Amino acid sequence: MASDFLTLADLAAARERIGPYVRRTPVLTSDVLDEAAGARLYFKCENLQQIGAFKARGATNAVFALSQAEAAHGVATHSSGNHGSAVARAAGLRGVPAYIVMPQGAARPKAVQIERLGGQITYCAPTQAAREAGVAEIIARTGATLIHPYDNRLVMAGQGTAALELMEDAPDLGLVLVPIGGGGLISGVSTAVKSVRPAARMVGVEPAGADDAARSFAAGRLIPLTEAHTIADGLRASLSADTFAHIQRGVDQVATVSEAAIVEAMRALWEALKVIVEPSAAVAYAAIRDGGVDARGQRVGVILTGGNVDLDRLPWAAQP
Amino acid sequence: MASDFLTLADLAAARERIGPYVRRTPVLTSDVLDEAAGARLYFKCENLQQIGAFKARGATNAVFALSQAEAAHGVATHSSGNHGSAVARAAGLRGVPAYIVMPQGAARPKAVQIERLGGQITYCAPTQAAREAGVAEIIARTGATLIHPYDNRLVMAGQGTAALELMEDAPDLGLVLVPIGGGGLISGVSTAVKSVRPAARMVGVEPAGADDAARSFAAGRLIPLTEAHTIADGLRASLSADTFAHIQRGVDQVATVSEAAIVEAMRALWEALKVIVEPSAAVAYAAIRDGGVDARGQRVGVILTGGNVDLDRLPWAAQP
Repeated sequence: MASDFLTLADLAAARERIGPYVRRTPVLTSDVLDEAAGARLYFKCENLQQIGAFKARGATNAVFALSQAEAAHGVATHSSGNHGSAVARAAGLRGVPAYIVMPQGAARPKAVQIERLGGQITYCAPTQAAREAGVAEIIARTGATLIHPYDNRLVMAGQGTAALELMEDAPDLGLVLVPIGGGGLISGVSTAVKSVRPAARMVGVEPAGADDAARSFAAGRLIPLTEAHTIADGLRASLSADTFAHIQRGVDQVATVSEAAIVEAMRALWEALKVIVEPSAAVAYAAIRDGGVDARGQRVGVILTGGNVDLDRLPWAAQP
Repeated sequence: MASDFLTLADLAAARERIGPYVRRTPVLTSDVLDEAAGARLYFKCENLQQIGAFKARGATNAVFALSQAEAAHGVATHSSGNHGSAVARAAGLRGVPAYIVMPQGAARPKAVQIERLGGQITYCAPTQAAREAGVAEIIARTGATLIHPYDNRLVMAGQGTAALELMEDAPDLGLVLVPIGGGGLISGVSTAVKSVRPAARMVGVEPAGADDAARSFAAGRLIPLTEAHTIADGLRASLSADTFAHIQRGVDQVATVSEAAIVEAMRALWEALKVIVEPSAAVAYAAIRDGGVDARGQRVGVILTGGNVDLDRLPWAAQP
């Protein structure tokens, strides 16, 4: 590790590095949602980011921070979700190979998207061990650099740049909420918030069915996620020691929400903001809506993390 | 009429007047849609406007242009769609009554939205004659001012302000497309485009099932719409003499698109841009997608007009 914790300087460097390649996403507001919450809510729309998720920030930072010699061997990851697309896109922009290991049987649209972005897919058995072995084999053969989806300081710093923009567009926030999966986003965001606006309360939110951060935070020690049961498929990852340390340093509360609250929040966001958010992206707002996080009377920043959903399988629709 | 045609000065005055009350909406782009079109597309997101539609612009301009004495008697309209919400909101901001005449049996969410915005609803029989009689009776009784949804120069000018912003955020456009319903939007937008960037081609698009503008444009005389068969419910209105005159002055082509093309375009916009657009808002892009308008190699501005849809009745979903 470069230092004990991420610093604002790491985030500033990331912002400079990724500036030409990612979007400054808009911050949206809604009178209807404000009235319901009794608060002023500022939604940072990372669902409108390149590849439809904040993951573009961290992956781009990590890929562009490589030396020319390192980068020439390519980059590798075993995420088939938004991070996989983000790595493929960043590598394409840098003109180097991206090796993405995906489990056989993964949803076809994900592979199509990664291939469109120039990623080279290797299929493996649908287990975590097979994925990791697949990436290890590629790295041994090609000399590619692993870009971990969250246990990587450059990735964490890149994700935190979303909060720098949010605090510029919505000053004087009293509360900032983000969802927690593997903890990369909240590590970067809490660094930003506690550096720029130390008075603001920093809250992470998890599905109750994937609550390793809540349990770890309460216990004061890392308790790995053994099973995940949630529609929020982006949040099924387990914290790393490093992201947990950042949560202990910079987070004031970890809340959990039910599956029903996630779906209700997702629909409310679609209706009020007219943007598409995936279930994982609705989790933070769900905690305001169900009362688990007290937001009343405050100026609140909420990061909407992504918008990649299957429009044929909306959680409130009759299934085909 | 104030003059023969709208001028850029009318739009500039509108922009100044409505500035504090409407949003400067973002312009989104998508590599995927650009690749499919062989063009560079700039989508002006009026679906992210207040009340979820560009209609907020025109109604706010008309309501705030009234003298204090006129405004005190209130405003009235018989639109139960986006324009009704826009009038109710603008009147609420000005602190004057809004009388909205709605047909019995109209969708309940529309009434809820208008009431939330402070509009006073009067129900009438579900015919055009009953609506007009209802508004006439209210005006006779209260002295309210009619805010017509499109046959009103202040409304037309307000709608045109969206194009001023678009041309600032996406300079050097070679082509601008908007949908045509009653013609208020294209009257304002064509005034903006032909004043600021005369070299740009101005195209209006209609559903083939509500093609009065296309037929009128081809015939060189106003041919009223007698029947409308389209999912694009915001485009079922008939041109006025004034909006038709503006189309003859400032529009280079009127294209039509099929119902299937509208639904396909709507879904493609949801998937690529991660924003919610209603069927009417997908019509302009549909004409690029189906080849009816040649956009290849150009910088193209497309106004996404609104995002108010029933999430339980998406056109590609199994119906409950």
